Amino acid sequence: MRMPETETDSTLALTANVFARACRSRAAFEDVTAKWSSLILIALAEGPHRFGELRRHVDGVSEKMLSQTLRALEADAMVTRTVHAVAPPRVDYELTTLGAEVARHLRGLADLLEGAVDDGSL
Amino acid sequence: MRMPETETDSTLALTANVFARACRSRAAFEDVTAKWSSLILIALAEGPHRFGELRRHVDGVSEKMLSQTLRALEADAMVTRTVHAVAPPRVDYELTTLGAEVARHLRGLADLLEGAVDDGSL
Repeated sequence: MRMPETETDSTLALTANVFARACRSRAAFEDVTAKWSSLILIALAEGPHRFGELRRHVDGVSEKMLSQTLRALEADAMVTRTVHAVAPPRVDYELTTLGAEVARHLRGLADLLEGAVDDGSL
Repeated sequence: MRMPETETDSTLALTANVFARACRSRAAFEDVTAKWSSLILIALAEGPHRFGELRRHVDGVSEKMLSQTLRALEADAMVTRTVHAVAPPRVDYELTTLGAEVARHLRGLADLLEGAVDDGSL
């Protein structure tokens, strides 16, 4: 017999839920939708970028915010940072597989909103 | 002959671009991905909610933030607020067509991140 679900029912902890404050998926959701994160992920969906390229691509981001956001996205396993052993060293930022999937959803949202502006519904 | 694109080429202004700070789509993108906005849109994708229902659904949101965010989403034509003439008056929040499309993308992102937590990749 299946026991009624209670707070001590361990199955409750097995399904991630963005609505639950304590869930890892909630933190990840907030991280990828944080100011600048989404635009940086969408920019990187077009291919690897160097820091300066990203800075120009994402209009308005400061060096400090770009640097902080890239570090947070690296910590969340969305972005990798690769230092190429050339002179002068070249540093590329690139999406991970998970980061690319996240970026695909964000690009879809951006397309929708751009389209809404273009057709006058926004 | 098509003229080369310059800053004064009016066609440049006709295509929305979330990367451009001055574009309306950028503001809308930032609004719907702002802290609490996304979760409220996803909650409303399940159907109309009253204020108190939303407050319980979105774990951690304060009355003040919920109220502010709903007003911003109304201003962006993502959410409608309907007062039903019953005693006591009932107020429902509901997605517009555009809001529902936006919420679909955000729900997809949430599903992806919940799945990544569930399968251990996040």
